[in-house]
Amino acid sequence: MTLLRQAEILFVEKQLPFWRELTQAQQADVIAFSSSVKFQKEEMIHRSDEQCAGFLLVKRGQIRTFLLSEDGREVTLYRLFEKDACVLSASCVLDEIAFDVMIQAVTDTEAILLPLGLFHRLMEENLSVALFAYRMATERFSDVMWSMQQILFLRADQRLAVFLWDETAKTGTSSVAYTHEQIARYMGSAREVVSRVLKYFAEEGVVALSRGKIEILDREKLKSFL
Amino acid sequence: MTLLRQAEILFVEKQLPFWRELTQAQQADVIAFSSSVKFQKEEMIHRSDEQCAGFLLVKRGQIRTFLLSEDGREVTLYRLFEKDACVLSASCVLDEIAFDVMIQAVTDTEAILLPLGLFHRLMEENLSVALFAYRMATERFSDVMWSMQQILFLRADQRLAVFLWDETAKTGTSSVAYTHEQIARYMGSAREVVSRVLKYFAEEGVVALSRGKIEILDREKLKSFL
Repeated sequence: MTLLRQAEILFVEKQLPFWRELTQAQQADVIAFSSSVKFQKEEMIHRSDEQCAGFLLVKRGQIRTFLLSEDGREVTLYRLFEKDACVLSASCVLDEIAFDVMIQAVTDTEAILLPLGLFHRLMEENLSVALFAYRMATERFSDVMWSMQQILFLRADQRLAVFLWDETAKTGTSSVAYTHEQIARYMGSAREVVSRVLKYFAEEGVVALSRGKIEILDREKLKSFL
Repeated sequence: MTLLRQAEILFVEKQLPFWRELTQAQQADVIAFSSSVKFQKEEMIHRSDEQCAGFLLVKRGQIRTFLLSEDGREVTLYRLFEKDACVLSASCVLDEIAFDVMIQAVTDTEAILLPLGLFHRLMEENLSVALFAYRMATERFSDVMWSMQQILFLRADQRLAVFLWDETAKTGTSSVAYTHEQIARYMGSAREVVSRVLKYFAEEGVVALSRGKIEILDREKLKSFL
């Protein structure tokens, strides 16, 4: 955790969604009290039994939010990318939120951390910041509903096709570098189910499988499963 | 749909959560343009393919919100009672919400309906109303996360115990007048599972079963399943 460097200050000024709504004094506080934080791939950013982390603005990398059951099952709720703000990492300042989640770095991740006390004070002093925080929570609500519908209603082959489609669309490549175990976690499914469906996709010529990597061979056919 | 009577105007003034934040002109508009609506037991208030209903404030009765899958399965997300505000019935004014739900009257229900245009205008004119709407959505987010955790993680006997416990706590009685089919819908489970667990609870002396009614015999024992 280090003070902001010049490039990071510019990033905050440009990417913090409520920057322009702050007074000059509030802006100075954000610069003075925020810090740059780094998380290694797979490092936990927040556990459900820990105190809130503070408000995170992703600078580089990828974060996922998931639920963990008592018997150790994980269900991914949504993922955040560059320039996304992670409001649930500061959910303890939103009285309306009575649940808790796990937050993990998917890849090596850099973020700007606004400490909890500062974010809380900004929300109290500035209605625009409070409105932003609740709008952001509402957007995450929408993401979670999407995940929930996937988990509850879609067949496994359809869910996996959606995952592969979204993933390659995001990265702009034709391959996905995840293990079956990782995909199962993202989908809220079991590794066995993912392996079975991938084998079926491979037999159908939709994908080619190699260790830790899935190559999409036929996008049109993949699309037919969506 | 009828204009507000004097008793309903008093109800709005007392129970509309953002009433005191409105200007006198806005208050006058709420009274002039809102209406009293009635729904019969099991009547649909909103279907996911329909236009938004508007902002509902429950005066009497009970509303439930659920998801419907393509093959007809229902999963209840949360229920609303007297004095609760149903913000998802006006979700089309919240840009952040990209999902849609079904909304149904569980019992005969009376509500005050603020038409969509009015609610939208109040949100635009008055930051407090916008903040209220997003806070409310965040609260529903919390409810849905609770349902989701129940569905994903709890064993069926635990879920049914939670349902019976909550239900009797809400109504202040020791019996629950729902069919197994209805309970299965609320729990996002199958009727067979509910019937099996209820039979087990009856054998354990926790409940007594009769047609369309479940009597709680042993609250302490029920608690042990929570």
